[in-house]
Amino acid sequence: MTKAQLLNCHESISPFIHNTPVLTSSLINKEIGAQLFFKCENFQRAGAYKIRGATHAIMQLSEDQKRNGVVTHSSGNFAQALSLAAKSIGVKATIVMPSNSPSVKKDAVLNYGGTIIECEPTIEARQCNADEITKTTGATFIHPSNHPDVILGQGTAALELLHLYDHLDTIICPVGGGGLIAGTALATHYVSKNCKVIGAEPMEVDDAYRSLISGKIETNRTTNTIADGLRTHLGSHNFPIILEHVSEIIRVTETEIIEAMRYIWERMKIIIEPSSAVAFAAVRKNKSLFKNQNVGIIISGGNVDLSKLPF
Amino acid sequence: MTKAQLLNCHESISPFIHNTPVLTSSLINKEIGAQLFFKCENFQRAGAYKIRGATHAIMQLSEDQKRNGVVTHSSGNFAQALSLAAKSIGVKATIVMPSNSPSVKKDAVLNYGGTIIECEPTIEARQCNADEITKTTGATFIHPSNHPDVILGQGTAALELLHLYDHLDTIICPVGGGGLIAGTALATHYVSKNCKVIGAEPMEVDDAYRSLISGKIETNRTTNTIADGLRTHLGSHNFPIILEHVSEIIRVTETEIIEAMRYIWERMKIIIEPSSAVAFAAVRKNKSLFKNQNVGIIISGGNVDLSKLPF
Repeated sequence: MTKAQLLNCHESISPFIHNTPVLTSSLINKEIGAQLFFKCENFQRAGAYKIRGATHAIMQLSEDQKRNGVVTHSSGNFAQALSLAAKSIGVKATIVMPSNSPSVKKDAVLNYGGTIIECEPTIEARQCNADEITKTTGATFIHPSNHPDVILGQGTAALELLHLYDHLDTIICPVGGGGLIAGTALATHYVSKNCKVIGAEPMEVDDAYRSLISGKIETNRTTNTIADGLRTHLGSHNFPIILEHVSEIIRVTETEIIEAMRYIWERMKIIIEPSSAVAFAAVRKNKSLFKNQNVGIIISGGNVDLSKLPF
Repeated sequence: MTKAQLLNCHESISPFIHNTPVLTSSLINKEIGAQLFFKCENFQRAGAYKIRGATHAIMQLSEDQKRNGVVTHSSGNFAQALSLAAKSIGVKATIVMPSNSPSVKKDAVLNYGGTIIECEPTIEARQCNADEITKTTGATFIHPSNHPDVILGQGTAALELLHLYDHLDTIICPVGGGGLIAGTALATHYVSKNCKVIGAEPMEVDDAYRSLISGKIETNRTTNTIADGLRTHLGSHNFPIILEHVSEIIRVTETEIIEAMRYIWERMKIIIEPSSAVAFAAVRKNKSLFKNQNVGIIISGGNVDLSKLPF
């Protein structure tokens, strides 16, 4: 994964994605004591950054592979993203979804023309179902986060942010499966001199925090967090990048996530999902760490089930 | 109120307001069958367009008047707006608020440094309390909607929208006290050749709809709508402008308002208040009327009590 590949990736997916706006709030800057730049991937197609990597991965397939379609497993946003990306490119998508995925995300997959296969909400069940589909249909498996083409694609959000604001001191983003933060870290490494990349993670699923300490991929004992996009663990492709280029992982509690989410909704009047609130919560709870800095925050998505709000 | 006054107004208030973004959604355009341009005053300072008129009205006061402060009555957004505008300019603001105003709006007034006097939720009680304060303190009364300087200020939202998109066929905005729509109609009249202005109103408080038919200012029998910003009636300053320059008023039901609000939250990932949803609901229920048109929609505000959502 080179800088040239990253730039090529951005150029090739650009017709299929939005270059999302970067919002600021003087009110929030004052309260935090730093200049915050919110890269609003909640305004992205399919409501999250995931369409970037999904589009890139499908575009790399041969014509033969495209004819057999793609398959993935996802707790939600990558499911929607792969469905929409596949539809845009004219490829069939099958999505293995855990049965406890938010209904708003299942509905979106169906609306985008994807086929859903439901499974038990464990990582093993997801992979097992996906493998079965790959074997029987010849579809290509696209992992939501642990796939070089996906990682590069997700890095284009930070690339766009740094194109606009090349003076950022830090970029912070949530950590789930590791695709976003690995892509963000690579992009930042390639186009910025001194910008640090920090991850944010719920206490309840702090596998990345522990992985950075132990030097190997740790898993979670529970998936007990409102941040439904962050329940998975890192993978073999993204972990080495994270180890090399990510400064630290900040952990936040469930209460801090919910309060941060409400704070953004009320102050900025934008809808962000709990996983996105994790990144802002990490800044909010560590104001002194970011004092007077220029901080990019990747608002990863806005797909929320309005019938099940935590407030 | 001349075109020159409108342009001067915009220039003078510009340092104190945001030139808010205009958002579009290809998904929504496809579903509606028209090109919609959402002027996002929910991202405005104090969360609504009202800061425009409030700022302009205070700036027109003499130094003597400024020393005695300003007073208004408001169900919410103008209360916040006048408090913040007064604080920016260094003037004391007293706000008469109906006791059933959303707590999020009362809190905001206090945060912005305004003083609240609570009253019964009737138009008579509001005015009576405000008159009393004017008499005892010498403060200048600034009506939230029926005041020439306020009307001009509110018109600057449409002015900015038309500066960006001069090909609009229609601008639609909600109608409450009449300040926004009168200002919108004036601005559109001054800077656009053929753009129509349409108002949108809840069925439950359809005073403006009836006023346009009868040719005189009608009042409401109830204030039974979720669109808490639209419970008031037109006034002597704005009604003649509305009569002359507004094409029609479209009425929508409470269900249509709530569904439109949820639709915008889910599709656009922005928080709009029920009063703003009224304008989009009017377009959504009359797709054939707007078919293939370029339609500006003024999203008037985003101040919602998240503890009391209708879904």
